[in-house]
Amino acid sequence: MAKRGRNQQSSGSAQRPRFWGRHAVEAALANPERVVRKLWATRQAADQLEIPKDLIVVFADAADLGRMVPADAPHQGLVAEVDPLEEVWLSDILSQDGGGPIVVLDQVTDPHNVGAVLRSAAAFDAAAIVTQDRHAPSEGGALAKAASGALELVPWVRVVNLSRALEEVAEGGYWRIGLAGETPTTLDEALGPQKVALVLGAEGEGLRHNVAQHCDVLARLPISDRVESLNISNAAAIALYAAAERSK
Amino acid sequence: MAKRGRNQQSSGSAQRPRFWGRHAVEAALANPERVVRKLWATRQAADQLEIPKDLIVVFADAADLGRMVPADAPHQGLVAEVDPLEEVWLSDILSQDGGGPIVVLDQVTDPHNVGAVLRSAAAFDAAAIVTQDRHAPSEGGALAKAASGALELVPWVRVVNLSRALEEVAEGGYWRIGLAGETPTTLDEALGPQKVALVLGAEGEGLRHNVAQHCDVLARLPISDRVESLNISNAAAIALYAAAERSK
Repeated sequence: MAKRGRNQQSSGSAQRPRFWGRHAVEAALANPERVVRKLWATRQAADQLEIPKDLIVVFADAADLGRMVPADAPHQGLVAEVDPLEEVWLSDILSQDGGGPIVVLDQVTDPHNVGAVLRSAAAFDAAAIVTQDRHAPSEGGALAKAASGALELVPWVRVVNLSRALEEVAEGGYWRIGLAGETPTTLDEALGPQKVALVLGAEGEGLRHNVAQHCDVLARLPISDRVESLNISNAAAIALYAAAERSK
Repeated sequence: MAKRGRNQQSSGSAQRPRFWGRHAVEAALANPERVVRKLWATRQAADQLEIPKDLIVVFADAADLGRMVPADAPHQGLVAEVDPLEEVWLSDILSQDGGGPIVVLDQVTDPHNVGAVLRSAAAFDAAAIVTQDRHAPSEGGALAKAASGALELVPWVRVVNLSRALEEVAEGGYWRIGLAGETPTTLDEALGPQKVALVLGAEGEGLRHNVAQHCDVLARLPISDRVESLNISNAAAIALYAAAERSK
């Protein structure tokens, strides 16, 4: 599923993401596809972790770890320096069996939101998330923390052109539902027996015109007029739940 | 619905919350129950805002505003100093007509999560959220930003004893569904024709024993074994959506 790609080029330590927090670090260590270069840990946190024999572990106190991560980042005694995962190709996802939904994010740039979407995507057995290279965050600590380990579980496809990717997704037999505010169709009405791709845009902006045009149907969540929109990760969670309930 | 309470005592500027971001500040200004003491704004942001005539506005540049809020907080050119809202009593909520769900949060302490829950609660016309005084954040900038204006829309009841509050909620005719991981009943099975109270615990910890005992049924979201739990605000969003779909 994973292919060697441009991530292989960045071998310098400066480019390497740092993950923190128990779930994120534990999941990185448990993922055979993930290269963990170095681990900093408090004695206490290390004691509760299964650490591969060949991994360099630097013991540190909590305050030292605090200086290695952004202010107030809840590192829980663990910081890991890792290599980004190898690239995943959309065609590999589409050629898999299995009916899990694909989540497509259009210009969702906040790493906490993308991380939270990954977590819900893992919870509802999504086949992959798809983002556009230029309009998405890269793997990093805040994203991995919000994903709570799911970054290691859900294939993340980065594409150059989202419209082209949506064409491929349709050719793969997926029904593309774009979440939008102003449309009469509700999500529940839009869901059918087919495999689905759930396409979500950034809060405020919504889907770009060209992306919306590459959906089979636009659907809205049945929310009150009192609010403009839901948080993007909450909208994704609801859409994933609704799709899972429908496919039961 | 609102009653004069202990919040009236804190008139010193030191205790006053500061809100930032367009949605949070705009909603605070639009809420007749909210006292906004002072507003700092860039000229550009102020131009796009309806500002009451008697409000003191200090014009500032974006960098100055940046120093008034936590690092990297996206203030969008607006910072407001406000009074906390007056206390809301559970009995007032329970005596209202209307079938909106009540969201009860047990030891959810992260302000971003509580804010995001408020936002979804507004989106699905919840009657109120209920938290325990000692185990919940107070009104503040990060919470108000995550709530994206919903802090001004959804009554927030703070109680001393959550178990006692759940007894009152039952007496008010609500069916109390506690979200839990290890239980055979799914949320969908637990939802009935009655008004519901959705009871959610902190991630990891879940519901405290005594709180779980004060639920009529424990129910789980149908998530994969691969993940331990959902983000609390995502779980709340799904539960609110499912309850809304059931009451259609």
